Amino acid sequence: MQLFADEETIERQNIVSPTLAPPLPRQTPLPTVPQDDAEVYEVVIVGAGPAGLMLNLLLARYGLPDSSRLCIDSNPSALKVGHADALMQRTMEVFKSLDIADEIWNHGLRGYEFTRWIKDPSSATGFIRQFSQFTARVMARYKPAIIMMSQGRIERILRDNLKQYSRKGVTWNCRVLDVKIENDVSDFPVRAIIEENGEKRTIRTKYLVGADGAHSVVRKSVGINQVGAMADDIWGVADMVVNTDFPDIRRPVHFASSKRIVSIIPRERKNDGEYLTRIYVPFDADDPIGSDSSNAAPQSEEYQRARRANITPKLILQRAQELFHPYYIRPKQEIEWWAAYQVGRRYAEHLVAKDGAGNSRVFLVGDSCHTHSPALGQGMNVAMMDSYDLSWKLMYAINGLTPEPEKLLSTFAHDRLENAKRLIENDRTWYETRYRTDGDDDVEAEKFLEDDLLTFMAGTSIEHDEGFLVDTKVGSIDGPIYSSSYLNGVLREGRRLADVMITRFADGDIRHSQDEFPSDGRFRVLVITSSDLLASPEGTSATALRRICQEVLPSFIPSTLELIIFTPFNSFSFEWANIPSFIKQEAEMRVHYLDSEGYATYGVEVKLGAIAVVRPDGYIGTIAKLDDTEKINRYLTRCLQTV
Amino acid sequence: MQLFADEETIERQNIVSPTLAPPLPRQTPLPTVPQDDAEVYEVVIVGAGPAGLMLNLLLARYGLPDSSRLCIDSNPSALKVGHADALMQRTMEVFKSLDIADEIWNHGLRGYEFTRWIKDPSSATGFIRQFSQFTARVMARYKPAIIMMSQGRIERILRDNLKQYSRKGVTWNCRVLDVKIENDVSDFPVRAIIEENGEKRTIRTKYLVGADGAHSVVRKSVGINQVGAMADDIWGVADMVVNTDFPDIRRPVHFASSKRIVSIIPRERKNDGEYLTRIYVPFDADDPIGSDSSNAAPQSEEYQRARRANITPKLILQRAQELFHPYYIRPKQEIEWWAAYQVGRRYAEHLVAKDGAGNSRVFLVGDSCHTHSPALGQGMNVAMMDSYDLSWKLMYAINGLTPEPEKLLSTFAHDRLENAKRLIENDRTWYETRYRTDGDDDVEAEKFLEDDLLTFMAGTSIEHDEGFLVDTKVGSIDGPIYSSSYLNGVLREGRRLADVMITRFADGDIRHSQDEFPSDGRFRVLVITSSDLLASPEGTSATALRRICQEVLPSFIPSTLELIIFTPFNSFSFEWANIPSFIKQEAEMRVHYLDSEGYATYGVEVKLGAIAVVRPDGYIGTIAKLDDTEKINRYLTRCLQTV
Repeated sequence: MQLFADEETIERQNIVSPTLAPPLPRQTPLPTVPQDDAEVYEVVIVGAGPAGLMLNLLLARYGLPDSSRLCIDSNPSALKVGHADALMQRTMEVFKSLDIADEIWNHGLRGYEFTRWIKDPSSATGFIRQFSQFTARVMARYKPAIIMMSQGRIERILRDNLKQYSRKGVTWNCRVLDVKIENDVSDFPVRAIIEENGEKRTIRTKYLVGADGAHSVVRKSVGINQVGAMADDIWGVADMVVNTDFPDIRRPVHFASSKRIVSIIPRERKNDGEYLTRIYVPFDADDPIGSDSSNAAPQSEEYQRARRANITPKLILQRAQELFHPYYIRPKQEIEWWAAYQVGRRYAEHLVAKDGAGNSRVFLVGDSCHTHSPALGQGMNVAMMDSYDLSWKLMYAINGLTPEPEKLLSTFAHDRLENAKRLIENDRTWYETRYRTDGDDDVEAEKFLEDDLLTFMAGTSIEHDEGFLVDTKVGSIDGPIYSSSYLNGVLREGRRLADVMITRFADGDIRHSQDEFPSDGRFRVLVITSSDLLASPEGTSATALRRICQEVLPSFIPSTLELIIFTPFNSFSFEWANIPSFIKQEAEMRVHYLDSEGYATYGVEVKLGAIAVVRPDGYIGTIAKLDDTEKINRYLTRCLQTV
Repeated sequence: MQLFADEETIERQNIVSPTLAPPLPRQTPLPTVPQDDAEVYEVVIVGAGPAGLMLNLLLARYGLPDSSRLCIDSNPSALKVGHADALMQRTMEVFKSLDIADEIWNHGLRGYEFTRWIKDPSSATGFIRQFSQFTARVMARYKPAIIMMSQGRIERILRDNLKQYSRKGVTWNCRVLDVKIENDVSDFPVRAIIEENGEKRTIRTKYLVGADGAHSVVRKSVGINQVGAMADDIWGVADMVVNTDFPDIRRPVHFASSKRIVSIIPRERKNDGEYLTRIYVPFDADDPIGSDSSNAAPQSEEYQRARRANITPKLILQRAQELFHPYYIRPKQEIEWWAAYQVGRRYAEHLVAKDGAGNSRVFLVGDSCHTHSPALGQGMNVAMMDSYDLSWKLMYAINGLTPEPEKLLSTFAHDRLENAKRLIENDRTWYETRYRTDGDDDVEAEKFLEDDLLTFMAGTSIEHDEGFLVDTKVGSIDGPIYSSSYLNGVLREGRRLADVMITRFADGDIRHSQDEFPSDGRFRVLVITSSDLLASPEGTSATALRRICQEVLPSFIPSTLELIIFTPFNSFSFEWANIPSFIKQEAEMRVHYLDSEGYATYGVEVKLGAIAVVRPDGYIGTIAKLDDTEKINRYLTRCLQTV
């Protein structure tokens, strides 16, 4: 079409930019530099792996200024190859809520099927092959049980997204030497000595987060002990493009003989068109490697180091080749990456260290507070979810958005430690059942593997305990929820809101319900109306909405709380004129049709409705009947600063 | 998990980078700089709007080096506001095939519903409101009839993607003054005078593309005439955030009284959280604006200019306000952008200009070869699809990948001119039926609007004529296709391959069939096997695949042709050992399960199967029975260079 430039108005900003999450409001003053000219921050993050990068990104997105934030890493530059490689279903949901899931979805290898091969000379082929489709016993937005993509690429996606919110990236080649909490400096009580490019200096900060891995200097500096021990098993891992006639090379495979185990993890396609394959080989304590390699006492560090030193890519491949025989498996290109490491099944005794006044000041996330085997593909996921949990709580404390900052921060310490313990326990059980059963079928073990373990691995079965952020779980007796099928999406205090399809009333857009709950740090009141919404402006639904809009929402700091409405009525059933006008005014683009299947998924009766508060991390804080808006108000007043 | 850095191998590249499309092979030498030191290119693109940017991006992706490519634009910088704002279904499919659809899908306003309002004092409310859900009569991967997003943002997405393939962006503030095809300079016969930042210089190129809009200097320079005329109607358009009680403000609305028309286009959300609204007001020849503003003769350019000058954002808003009354509509912020322009319904007589030897040298795309009203939201879509059609044909000519470059290029000139004519005709018919019917219901007009027009608008109903790139259409008599329901996805020579869901055999990944046909410039042979695939290695399916793998594919330049296989068998039905080994060797990650519904969608009988060649642009070139691989070979030999 033909346009006359001279009749156009001047340029504006922002219309062409990518969509960004809005920052959280700040009720506290920005820190002023102390008189002693010390280098001060509000948050210092030690480590720029998945945990550190996720935290750094989230804080930047929530609006913590570059001047208040420092993320350092002792490595000279970003990770290029190897390390973790699996994203689980809940992690993908969280990535989607941050608008950074698409590249992973489009280009990761999506694992829908797996096989188990057992070497069995008595069978005709020499093998028993068990083929399965992953059946996670939970409802999740993303169907593949795992999506495989190199950790380095996921870190790059996090760093790329950071550039949209911040001019400050990671400070590489900078390590922490010591961390102390001092009680005499009230605003910035954490003092850390760091060494950047070989030069030492002291910095101070309100909060410091150790995302510095299994050998965490932060953890050691603040004297947090680990529970558990180094296990005897050593794992060899190698990433390569393979040339093979093994038929299941593109599916996750557990391959076992009576003596040996190999795991195959299919990986994403590289830019040269070739697909990567990861090979895991666990070497247990009885494995003869290294038996002649050291005179040190078994179990000693020296002995273990000598055993590890005997593991080479050649040996890893050789073990696979022996097991695969008569199938062949050969590297098609140079081996991409490999490593040998000893599994420690340990978790930190505490996830926080406090100052003299009892305020949490130093936090641990990721490998710094839990180490385990790679068998369940959890490491990177749990690490990022630690940071996802911590980030908004930290930001609420810093920005003055909660009346109880320490209670809020304590929920991190409790909830993520519970999860870490469960992780270590599951890792052990998996190893003992799957890796030690030598191919025997054990009914109880199988049940564990298929039910508890798969839902744990998915990350969608977490149910936080009752506490500051999770109201008493009322269930179906005292609450409006009629089902207890929580893994299938029924609303439950302490569980994440499951994804269903909804249709926005204003424009008919067909949407994922989780997209109405982006991870931008806001609490949200979800009113699921009953079928009386259209009947009368004095009905239960309309009254509940009026109270939320006119009494509850105005009590809180603007832009910390948002109203979402699901109704059983679609665009053919009503017009704006049929419902009270304050609804459109408050939530024009947040009124959605939820079909009867959706009501059933959430366990809400269409005749009764329900109200839930969804926390910034997508977990449900409280659930109330439509006529009990006072319960909603009580919950919110406890968690959120009022105006 | 715990890793020992000293046991890791050195860094590699590419594992962390975004996935990139591979370049096309080049069989011709790169140009050498002529002795006269002239500035030479292989392709010069004049204009960096949607058409020019799309072409520039595609050529870069196909591997045309930066030194061979120049894209200039007379504007000082990129577009920030206004202009086009709608993407249609086929455009979205193409964007997806380039891996650049996600931001638009996630953040555009997705139009599923629309309403038509007719002012009618005799009705109780003063209006008749007709509510509809868009029902495009075609099967498309993306369900919304339109996705709304600012042209400037779409251009930014194209430029962002270009950065992944090229270090050379658009040369702004550079206009073309003259273009000539000279017959004495064989390699670079197109000579153009350009002016960059006020300085003139002459450049030479093999090919030049005019993407320079309705007033195309390129078109005028090479003497291509336009067919059609400036219409009398002038359109006013304004983008703003509105404050209104009009209930349908988030749906596309056609609003009419007996004398006036207003169109409402809901738009994407801005980063400040507000949703934009576009208001279109056509002013027809009888409209009293400007009747007293000029002494010039009606129809004269001067008269029209004076009329246009009378249109202001205030007037556009006032027209909307009069029609909306008693609803109110007010700008909530400063008006974002506005324009007034006269509609010309014209198309270029030819889309190419040739040199003395009959070779196409100058091409027209976008507004330079078709202008029309904005009513159908086609401009930006058709412009980009012109370039999408031209890009790979140009690249095949340049890289020596076709034995008949001129025949290949001629298909652009023919096919896109046919489409341009259809566009102008549809725009006129729409205007005459919808905008002039004053709210009367006309059965024939409605049928046109709902059937032909909606499928045309979607961009998915294009069926190219038989010719060099499209074999004789065999239909169900001589061919393997048993249905003629082409709009619903049945395979047809000259139509695009519709999207269905498939499951990859190797890893069980559930995929969109269109994702197997990315726009990377490759031809693809799609073998849809019959159910005899597993019966015998000498059966029809296995024989067809053997011939394709062993006789057809090896004849052509590697990486110009790829094999895709759909079978009626899923992962539970067979293993690699059950089918001939050359299949896995040739197409391990391109063997997919197509369910019986998928066979039915494509119109292929499971008992018979079929073979199709899919062109680089997703259109089907030829269809053959499984036992007629010779037909496939003939088609490919005609189009593609053999080794």
